[in-house]
Amino acid sequence: MSSIRDVAREAGVSVATVSRALSMPEKVSEEAMNKVHRAIEKVGYRPNMLARNFRSARSYAIVVLVPDIANPFYSLVIRAIEDRAQQKGYAVLLGDTRGTPERELEYIRRVETRLADGLLQLRPHSEKTHNVIPPDIATVNACGCEYTTGPSVRIDNRGAAKTIVDYLISLGHRRIGAISGLKDNPHAIDRMKGYKESLAEHGIPFDPDLVAEGDFTMWSGLNSAFQFCHMKNRPTAIFSTNDEMAIGAIQTLKSQGIRVPEDMSVTGFDDIAYAKYTDPSLTTMSQPAEEMGKMAMDMLLKIIEGEPLTQTECVLPTEFIIRKSTAPAPGAELPNTPKKVTPAP
Amino acid sequence: MSSIRDVAREAGVSVATVSRALSMPEKVSEEAMNKVHRAIEKVGYRPNMLARNFRSARSYAIVVLVPDIANPFYSLVIRAIEDRAQQKGYAVLLGDTRGTPERELEYIRRVETRLADGLLQLRPHSEKTHNVIPPDIATVNACGCEYTTGPSVRIDNRGAAKTIVDYLISLGHRRIGAISGLKDNPHAIDRMKGYKESLAEHGIPFDPDLVAEGDFTMWSGLNSAFQFCHMKNRPTAIFSTNDEMAIGAIQTLKSQGIRVPEDMSVTGFDDIAYAKYTDPSLTTMSQPAEEMGKMAMDMLLKIIEGEPLTQTECVLPTEFIIRKSTAPAPGAELPNTPKKVTPAP
Repeated sequence: MSSIRDVAREAGVSVATVSRALSMPEKVSEEAMNKVHRAIEKVGYRPNMLARNFRSARSYAIVVLVPDIANPFYSLVIRAIEDRAQQKGYAVLLGDTRGTPERELEYIRRVETRLADGLLQLRPHSEKTHNVIPPDIATVNACGCEYTTGPSVRIDNRGAAKTIVDYLISLGHRRIGAISGLKDNPHAIDRMKGYKESLAEHGIPFDPDLVAEGDFTMWSGLNSAFQFCHMKNRPTAIFSTNDEMAIGAIQTLKSQGIRVPEDMSVTGFDDIAYAKYTDPSLTTMSQPAEEMGKMAMDMLLKIIEGEPLTQTECVLPTEFIIRKSTAPAPGAELPNTPKKVTPAP
Repeated sequence: MSSIRDVAREAGVSVATVSRALSMPEKVSEEAMNKVHRAIEKVGYRPNMLARNFRSARSYAIVVLVPDIANPFYSLVIRAIEDRAQQKGYAVLLGDTRGTPERELEYIRRVETRLADGLLQLRPHSEKTHNVIPPDIATVNACGCEYTTGPSVRIDNRGAAKTIVDYLISLGHRRIGAISGLKDNPHAIDRMKGYKESLAEHGIPFDPDLVAEGDFTMWSGLNSAFQFCHMKNRPTAIFSTNDEMAIGAIQTLKSQGIRVPEDMSVTGFDDIAYAKYTDPSLTTMSQPAEEMGKMAMDMLLKIIEGEPLTQTECVLPTEFIIRKSTAPAPGAELPNTPKKVTPAP
């Protein structure tokens, strides 16, 4: 096995330079760096990077806390984080918390014990169900909410939800069911605020019977929709706070002989890959998953490196995508619907 | 900040015992371990685990090499791996290779330089597109194939594919299109072998015009299906080597006015969560994703800890799930179809 001396000899530089190139690359000229890298490849040197980590008290790893990696929206954000981390020489430790504070705590401990240099949270902090992250831990929320404390990247969840419900109302819907996430989930809270704001603005009273609580899984959407099917005066539209629950709900409606969108419109949130391919294709709000992941990773690296943040809260734009799961309410007379013109004889 | 001495004093044990409890827990009695853990919590001690890693030359982390984390089948396997790793005190480093040998190599280097103790591969090795993993690196294939070298967990991809095609033939289909993965993908190779074996066994000549090459994404399934739509003598069934391509293909068929399954049957492979919710629901082969992830992680830990493997190749059972995307071939006379009986007058 070759040693650091072999590398230095091959590169024509001192052992100290090779050592610096490995542990503090920013202090070595590009020319020397290239020489060292070529020499490392040539002699097949494999440095013990644990020694570097120990000396620098850095692990060059970050933890991504994700409530459920099987959620396709989160996997897009994680892919972007991993991509940027890789470019910057950092590893991504996967922290699938399953939404439990105990598992979350174990990952926070990893940062406290130096096994990671910082945390990216994909679900914003909620005091009730989450641990308080110690202030000396570098952390950024990649999918923040309105009241998220600390640095965050987010969309305007409330405004985006309001846009969706405004649109349903513009189609003549007055009884609009909602499938929310769990009550204490910050994303669910922000999006339900937008739902209520839109109703209030249009003079439609809020009816708690029209809200079903899901947990962002397809299965919970499937179950929630049954509540609406069996109502005497059932809603003509369902606003779901994510796509997976909307896809589950459509399945239930179809199984109960309720046509989407003719009898009931359904909307989602996220624009996961499947939203385009469900039948009917899903009207939804697209979040910039890739941009959110990259931007959050960049902010976290700045904090870890001790650089100042120019912005501690980045609100990114969303895009409302109208597909085929929404239509005018049955029997609604819309002011904007073109009147049928009887052709002149 | 409290120190290891504070922990020892609180626990009523020696500093050496605390140190052993942190770095070599297997050498400390359960009673002493509990005392130390309680004391650590009480005094709020946060050991620098980088020191432990450096002394033990271990990182207590493993790398998961995955071609695409956004693939829902892989995210289920990863979730199981993370769960088991967490139980055993290991971190999971995410290695999203995007199928490129360069990115794969960077992750292999992490193990070589001690930043991880082993590798789990989710896509089996193929010499053409992948790096040769040095023999001294602990590695297990979590989703292996027939000719995968080294320890692996796998299903019988060839046999499972043959079961699907046998079923289509039993429904009277003779012209069966295939959407394969990329030519050099080992999963695609095994599954296409099963397809050809079934045809041969039933005396149906293999027709290369009936094979479209996809890349396991929904998008590629969508494009591949066009090839079949515009054929003069088009197939009556499509065998797809994964669910995502099958879901994309169904979308194309419907857009071209081809009814599934009345005009064309479609089958998938994997049984991802969406397979149940597409319209029509997808006939597919279910893989035991969770079991595969757990078993592969257990094997890898044994290799890392230097324990002998009782089995180097585990072949797990699959389950064929018949849903609504398959039906008898148009106009087929099936020997098993019950004949219509004219009731006696």
